[in-house]
Amino acid sequence: MWDKLIKNIHISSMAGSNDSATGNIKNAALGIKDGDIVYIGPESNLPKKPLDQLSNCIIDGEEGWALPGFIDCHTHLVYAGNRSGEFKARLDGASYEDIAKAGGGILATVKATRAASEEELIEQSLPRLQALIQSGVTTIEIKSGYGLTLEDEIKMLKAAIQLEATTGITVTTTLLAAHSIPPEYKDRADAYIDHICAEIIPAALEAECVDAVDAFCEGIAFSPEQVKRVFAYAKAEGLDVKLHADQLSDLGGGALAADYNALSADHIEYASLESIKAMAEKNTVATLLPGAFYNLKETQTPPVKHLREYGVPIALATDCNPGSSPVMNIQLMLHMGCTLFGLTVDEALLGITKNAALALGMDETHGSLEVGKVADINLFKITDPADLVYNIGGIEPQMTFKDGIQL
Amino acid sequence: MWDKLIKNIHISSMAGSNDSATGNIKNAALGIKDGDIVYIGPESNLPKKPLDQLSNCIIDGEEGWALPGFIDCHTHLVYAGNRSGEFKARLDGASYEDIAKAGGGILATVKATRAASEEELIEQSLPRLQALIQSGVTTIEIKSGYGLTLEDEIKMLKAAIQLEATTGITVTTTLLAAHSIPPEYKDRADAYIDHICAEIIPAALEAECVDAVDAFCEGIAFSPEQVKRVFAYAKAEGLDVKLHADQLSDLGGGALAADYNALSADHIEYASLESIKAMAEKNTVATLLPGAFYNLKETQTPPVKHLREYGVPIALATDCNPGSSPVMNIQLMLHMGCTLFGLTVDEALLGITKNAALALGMDETHGSLEVGKVADINLFKITDPADLVYNIGGIEPQMTFKDGIQL
Ligand SMILES: [Zn+2]
Ligand SMILES: [Zn+2]
Repeated sequence: MWDKLIKNIHISSMAGSNDSATGNIKNAALGIKDGDIVYIGPESNLPKKPLDQLSNCIIDGEEGWALPGFIDCHTHLVYAGNRSGEFKARLDGASYEDIAKAGGGILATVKATRAASEEELIEQSLPRLQALIQSGVTTIEIKSGYGLTLEDEIKMLKAAIQLEATTGITVTTTLLAAHSIPPEYKDRADAYIDHICAEIIPAALEAECVDAVDAFCEGIAFSPEQVKRVFAYAKAEGLDVKLHADQLSDLGGGALAADYNALSADHIEYASLESIKAMAEKNTVATLLPGAFYNLKETQTPPVKHLREYGVPIALATDCNPGSSPVMNIQLMLHMGCTLFGLTVDEALLGITKNAALALGMDETHGSLEVGKVADINLFKITDPADLVYNIGGIEPQMTFKDGIQL
Repeated sequence: MWDKLIKNIHISSMAGSNDSATGNIKNAALGIKDGDIVYIGPESNLPKKPLDQLSNCIIDGEEGWALPGFIDCHTHLVYAGNRSGEFKARLDGASYEDIAKAGGGILATVKATRAASEEELIEQSLPRLQALIQSGVTTIEIKSGYGLTLEDEIKMLKAAIQLEATTGITVTTTLLAAHSIPPEYKDRADAYIDHICAEIIPAALEAECVDAVDAFCEGIAFSPEQVKRVFAYAKAEGLDVKLHADQLSDLGGGALAADYNALSADHIEYASLESIKAMAEKNTVATLLPGAFYNLKETQTPPVKHLREYGVPIALATDCNPGSSPVMNIQLMLHMGCTLFGLTVDEALLGITKNAALALGMDETHGSLEVGKVADINLFKITDPADLVYNIGGIEPQMTFKDGIQL
């Protein structure tokens, strides 16, 4: 007997074929057992038994739409402190220089994060995660990168793991020690890279708190050569890698990521055609982050036409972070992905489901509604999945199931 | 004895003086009696009585911030039908012409709205209003303008009034019969203006369902001369007027609105300096609508610097409508007002409180927290009011009070 049967729904499975990628099934039903999907298809094709012999928990979806739980595959959700004051000062006319002089910018977050205990980090980050969950997120990637010391990076990753236990949603952790050059290593970026490889990565492995390794490849952060050292080390240790690539300039980050079989290259506003071809060849996901683009008032949009032409999978994420993208609603990224970057509605929806799962290496189990996959499901009272993209401000799921259990 | 005492809060009253316009009071308390505010000030200045003799309902605000209930002073919230399919088609490559040929655009909404009963209009509009309420809205202006016949315009206004009864928040109604030229009056705009003046306005007055009259002054809608006829008639009947002005071109709409002592001129991306000076002289509110600007990918921003220089009050609203601004969250307008239009944090917050009340002619009773004003209050678990602007996606109020009663 199934644990749950959701009937009287329409399904956008995200497991469709090329001409109907969102895999819509009207008048459908969905069976759940042991946290997994055991039936998905037309309600009329359900096994020929009375419903109450199929399952003793029958949920009437009231003709709403079921979609996979949303996956936010790029966030910096765990941090301490509050930079709304800096945001206010900037609008009041302060320059970035003024703000840096007053101790603002990323170093303000580093300082607050270092000063916070793991418990304080969890407490301050939880409301952000709850807001994202309210918008339909059931799986989230969380990066370190505001500690920039061995202890503080590990503390951030452990806080992220604790948030999984606290909320019940899936958290994947990414070590982003190569986010910014810490003050202690000013003008000694190479020495910091040595420290990351020789000490921080091994410690994170030892503490079993790391799923992947990320780096910020940019003029204001780390060079491609420095990133390669981190990636070579991480890959040798069996870790997945991903990259903040080509956000503000073309450093060949997309191709670099592809060279190391990275899960994803993220931002990529300035990625070259060569990078895109390399990503296509390796099936490296392009994770687009329209919240940062909007908030930073950028003008160079990512090369969506080429991504499409070469078949690079496109994911969308919040980039939730205190500086460039304080976004607390994944659905808003759907609208911004379409309006600012020209994605189609289907591309946007695939970007926070199937392709976001691919960007986390979880596509075998998550990101689409299929028999055998995990029952992470959002149920919405809408007349069409396009409503989720079209409405600015988001539509809360009527019900969300995580591993088959209602949140 | 007071009905309620909210203690242990900070207050952003929006009743400040020039140098601190948001009127912040730290460590404050707020007393409510008969739906009005009877005390506001430092908790230490409360009348010298034990708390339980001041009020038998004492609410611990847990050091959160209290702000006035938010006022959405420009919406087209009541309509039938769904244009997410048209949004999808446009992103899939359909031109505006294709969409118009397929029966899309504003006429699709007119058709669906005409076909809907008053009950259906209420049912379809309620989730939108609920989403806005969830973002902190306690007062909303709702326009007609998708009926474009006497009966259908009145039906829309009556549905808006019913939404007030259903939700308990304040609804003000605006007759926008001069929104678009109805198909029946193709090439006979002047005859439609006659019909509005001679029949629709009198019928709305007779049905007691209209607080103000609005018009869309633009090349694609009605000319300044036509608007003047509507305004002259409305003013003679004692109705307030307001104007969709200078959104896509400068037709002198700002000055026209000021000439008729309009409550507000809305959009005004293209308003001339002359219009701004006229608005300043008459204290006509400039209602800015960044959702439409963002969604339509406009590039001409409203003349914020001049509005500031001449002291024109600035309001912000969602413009919630199915075509150009399907925005369901008022707080998102705070961020967009700052990021897209360059407002300061304080200007943004005043824009959905004090100045939005002014734009509805309700500033004597609403829009700020002051003794004698209505107890419409949002309580947020935030460390600074700037958090509400800075966070993209919004922070739900912990509690909302409408006329002193918790929603
Ligand atoms: Zn990032
Ligand atoms: Zn409007």
